[in-house]
Amino acid sequence: MSPKITTELLKQLRQVMKNPKYVQEPVQAYIVPSGDAHQSEYIAPCDCRRAFISGFDGSAGTAIVTEQHAAMWTDGRYFLQAAHQMDNNWTLMKMGLKDTPTQEDWLVSVLPEGSKVGVDPFIIPADQWKRMSKALRSAGHDLVPVKENLIDTIWTGCPQRPCKPLITLDLSYTGISWRDKIVALRSKMAERKVMWFVVTALDEVAWLFNLRGSDVEYNPVFFAYAVIGMNTIRLFIDGERMMDPSVREHLQLDSTLEPEFKIQVMPYGSILSELQAVGAGLSPKEKVWLSDKASYALTEAIPKAYRYLTPYTPICIAKAVKNAAETEGMRRAHIKDAVALCELFNWLEKEVPKGTVTEIIAADKAEEFRSQQKDFVELSFATISSTGPNGAIIHYKPVPETNRTLSVNEIYLLDSGAQYKDGTTDVTRTMHFGTPSAYEKECFTYVLKGHIAVSAAIFPNGTKGHLLDSFARSALWDCGLDYLHGTGHGVGSFLNVHEGPCGISYKTFADEPLEAGMIVSDEPGYYEDGSFGIRIENVVLVIPAETKYNFKNRGSLTFEPLTLVPIQTKMIDVNLLTEKERNWVNEYHRKCREVVGAELERQGRHEALRWLLRETEPLARVQ
Amino acid sequence: MSPKITTELLKQLRQVMKNPKYVQEPVQAYIVPSGDAHQSEYIAPCDCRRAFISGFDGSAGTAIVTEQHAAMWTDGRYFLQAAHQMDNNWTLMKMGLKDTPTQEDWLVSVLPEGSKVGVDPFIIPADQWKRMSKALRSAGHDLVPVKENLIDTIWTGCPQRPCKPLITLDLSYTGISWRDKIVALRSKMAERKVMWFVVTALDEVAWLFNLRGSDVEYNPVFFAYAVIGMNTIRLFIDGERMMDPSVREHLQLDSTLEPEFKIQVMPYGSILSELQAVGAGLSPKEKVWLSDKASYALTEAIPKAYRYLTPYTPICIAKAVKNAAETEGMRRAHIKDAVALCELFNWLEKEVPKGTVTEIIAADKAEEFRSQQKDFVELSFATISSTGPNGAIIHYKPVPETNRTLSVNEIYLLDSGAQYKDGTTDVTRTMHFGTPSAYEKECFTYVLKGHIAVSAAIFPNGTKGHLLDSFARSALWDCGLDYLHGTGHGVGSFLNVHEGPCGISYKTFADEPLEAGMIVSDEPGYYEDGSFGIRIENVVLVIPAETKYNFKNRGSLTFEPLTLVPIQTKMIDVNLLTEKERNWVNEYHRKCREVVGAELERQGRHEALRWLLRETEPLARVQ
Repeated sequence: MSPKITTELLKQLRQVMKNPKYVQEPVQAYIVPSGDAHQSEYIAPCDCRRAFISGFDGSAGTAIVTEQHAAMWTDGRYFLQAAHQMDNNWTLMKMGLKDTPTQEDWLVSVLPEGSKVGVDPFIIPADQWKRMSKALRSAGHDLVPVKENLIDTIWTGCPQRPCKPLITLDLSYTGISWRDKIVALRSKMAERKVMWFVVTALDEVAWLFNLRGSDVEYNPVFFAYAVIGMNTIRLFIDGERMMDPSVREHLQLDSTLEPEFKIQVMPYGSILSELQAVGAGLSPKEKVWLSDKASYALTEAIPKAYRYLTPYTPICIAKAVKNAAETEGMRRAHIKDAVALCELFNWLEKEVPKGTVTEIIAADKAEEFRSQQKDFVELSFATISSTGPNGAIIHYKPVPETNRTLSVNEIYLLDSGAQYKDGTTDVTRTMHFGTPSAYEKECFTYVLKGHIAVSAAIFPNGTKGHLLDSFARSALWDCGLDYLHGTGHGVGSFLNVHEGPCGISYKTFADEPLEAGMIVSDEPGYYEDGSFGIRIENVVLVIPAETKYNFKNRGSLTFEPLTLVPIQTKMIDVNLLTEKERNWVNEYHRKCREVVGAELERQGRHEALRWLLRETEPLARVQ
Repeated sequence: MSPKITTELLKQLRQVMKNPKYVQEPVQAYIVPSGDAHQSEYIAPCDCRRAFISGFDGSAGTAIVTEQHAAMWTDGRYFLQAAHQMDNNWTLMKMGLKDTPTQEDWLVSVLPEGSKVGVDPFIIPADQWKRMSKALRSAGHDLVPVKENLIDTIWTGCPQRPCKPLITLDLSYTGISWRDKIVALRSKMAERKVMWFVVTALDEVAWLFNLRGSDVEYNPVFFAYAVIGMNTIRLFIDGERMMDPSVREHLQLDSTLEPEFKIQVMPYGSILSELQAVGAGLSPKEKVWLSDKASYALTEAIPKAYRYLTPYTPICIAKAVKNAAETEGMRRAHIKDAVALCELFNWLEKEVPKGTVTEIIAADKAEEFRSQQKDFVELSFATISSTGPNGAIIHYKPVPETNRTLSVNEIYLLDSGAQYKDGTTDVTRTMHFGTPSAYEKECFTYVLKGHIAVSAAIFPNGTKGHLLDSFARSALWDCGLDYLHGTGHGVGSFLNVHEGPCGISYKTFADEPLEAGMIVSDEPGYYEDGSFGIRIENVVLVIPAETKYNFKNRGSLTFEPLTLVPIQTKMIDVNLLTEKERNWVNEYHRKCREVVGAELERQGRHEALRWLLRETEPLARVQ
């Protein structure tokens, strides 16, 4: 991996930073954040501006270019990668280290007095703008919005914004029509006394209209905004795709409808001017609801007194609680996904000893088996296929330079998932194709104990997921071990594999309480640098729990695993399990056998079925 | 309990709210918060202004009086009490209920346009002022500081501010001299590049100078402020007490000292003018460090650009980590405290069946036994002595109207503690003097399992206490039970029984990480309204833990119980304990026997010793 040479690009950028064609006044610094205009986690190639200007293409990082300097802030996952990908025009700012300055402090230390710092107001979230603007102002500088994105002005060959066809989802997938979702949203708006709601997150637009797209890899979303009024619906979206008869039919664009359900389709690029018009026409007490992560540009379109900002939107919260149709779809998707993985692991068991299977081949094979399943659309994220020391790199993705061959001597970790029309999967299994050492088994068993502690936990209604995080770590902590990532994230229903507002992590306090119907991952791990990585991940559904008592009539919750893929018993040191834990494993494997076994049988996949039966033999009681 | 008649008082208050002798311009509303000028949890009688004006004397509440209204905000613990104690001039604002307005919203709804809202700037913390002032300003009103406290102007017979003699603590108690504490503080100040540090919390002043007082009941503190410069020390304190030769000697007031250790003693009331002088004399980049909970008055004395505010001060953090002398002192105090409780429980076992022991008698007896111990100073909080349904009232304190007689048919809960010159104790035991029901034993055993889960937990260095809270609840949750309070609080060393910056609670995310030497309580419970309450509380010391592995060389921590009082085995359903839990109980009781037994022997308390031996018989393994 050789660094990108950026000398010429930086020169060009510094020129446009002073060019009156693009800036009202010269800016002495220009900030290039990671995101897109929708604050997406995964972004389209045309939005990879920070990677273009710097060469560093990790998922998190902010570049700041001044007349003299170019600096990149990123976190511990990417220190090595960023150092490799950037040339020496760039200074790497290692976030999380004690001596690393914040972006604001650094700017204040390098800028001449009274500087202007530019940023694309569509890319920076309003809350971030506010923080940075305040810090700069108190040091005598100004954060200024630069309408035209300055990277785009120098990016020759910038890819076009994708505009792919849409998929319509009928009631059998969504459980609720888009009309009913609009009705529910308007009732939430009425509760809070707001007149308008601005949908800025791509997955929220997709969910609201029961549409899917493929504008962003792995995330079945499409570039669009929506503005919902009490009597109007405006959808901001480009391209031919709105000419598709099935989409027109789905959205009833050509039907005579009550006016409050008539969708006005408008160009994607007109969102700002339309929102400004809304903002200008508000009467006193008419509020507009926005996410506090919405872009500065859109937030500013609404005068401050009229804004109603919340960290989680009512769509985000409604979307997280899956209805019966979505839950059933997720179940089906996970059964199909398990079929594909039984095939894969059976195949790997035969092929790995031959020494011909690399991490990339294994990942491709996993995709191949998944793609044979009904309603398969694409993967839900880049497959983490890692063996031996690569397994210890938590966000590893095999590339030719790092691609390792699987062997009977090393642990193999596969974290993968897919988008099916009926659901999204995300599963991690850690396997050994030879004989694991006692130490590897010991570590695996602690991770398994943590996985079970969360999966089998019973907790009161209203409990936030972060309160369960320590359960996943307790067995590791007892032996002085730990893992440096959260335990779980929300999972979309044929939507983003990571979604809010719930999760299981020591890192946040702002998650929404878990409720029945929410779906999260349960994925503790253990990583030994330079040796191996272990992670056991199921996607689990929050369900009501039956308990002996019922304090204050609050009711209790627990989890039901949706993922039904055997956990390799060869890796388990049964002596370290309690009876309750052993029973959990046996019951889990009984269910895999019953449910996935039936589907393997139905699909005539007899060899994989035999593998499943072998792998789900009950653990014997230790004498 | 009849309500206080406040008609005349409110009339007087409304007059002074318009009296130019006290206010520059009339104020249309006056806020009376709970606290004192040091944001103390426990306050002196002269600071009970909210209780004086309203009659409501619970520990938390804010009164607001306007020309037309008088309203009191308090939380669920006090709804009943406040309703009983206040006459119908007052509206009770039940905090935590959905329809209860915030103070700001209520003010905005009742005030005429452009109103002034007054408050004593010494009583309101700066962070609270900021929030309230912003909300009022955005509605066209003004929050204004009223120098003279308006309650004091109408409070005839207001008690004097206490000014009791001081206790000096020598190195055998404190481990570090006040000079060395000043040196350490100045080095923290140098690290953060601040020139001045303002000590506003009473326990921080006491800790810094190795002095104790008795100005506030239960808290061995005295009214004082301190301002520490890089070369100066100013102590703001009133009264004869600084004439005491032992205090003068302790503070070396009459010695020739290096000037940077020379303490300038100044009147308590001169803090504001002195701080204003400091504020006026600052050169650029000279910062002044204050707690963000310091009063608005003191915070405003320093121009905004020069303030350095943190939620926890370096003294608060240093004070929390006990040194060897303090730890040894705490151990001694807890042994003496255990001797007193063995005596008490032995006495109760004999007396309760006679039907003559009330909650108040039991509490008094506990104090009597404690007061026989060496270095006993006072109780560390009002004893919670509660039997039967009173046990379910979490913050219960027996008064004649509620005083119940202990019996062999009801559970008895005693939460009590004392201040000894060598340490502070806080212990809860739940006992049955007859035969507990199976259900009572079951609930007790879940609480015990939670207590053990925290006490025996092993966790990485750097872990915050809130991450351990769910361990205490897991056994209760499994059966649909829970308790509605946090699990633990920091405990001072012959200082406040509640102190920051650490604790074990689901409610906070802002606690500082636990480190070896910190001392917290571990006190899960279970409360059944109208029937009984169960709580098991030990004070525990954070100590390094030996673990099999040591991930990233972080090291691990665990807890050592300082409290050594038997846990009533009669209340335990041994069938519900794991072997590990049973071993924990037996090992705990072995230690109680060994350590407290030796002290009972030494003090010639043979009957109590026999009680201890009986109560610490090992639990038998269940067949």
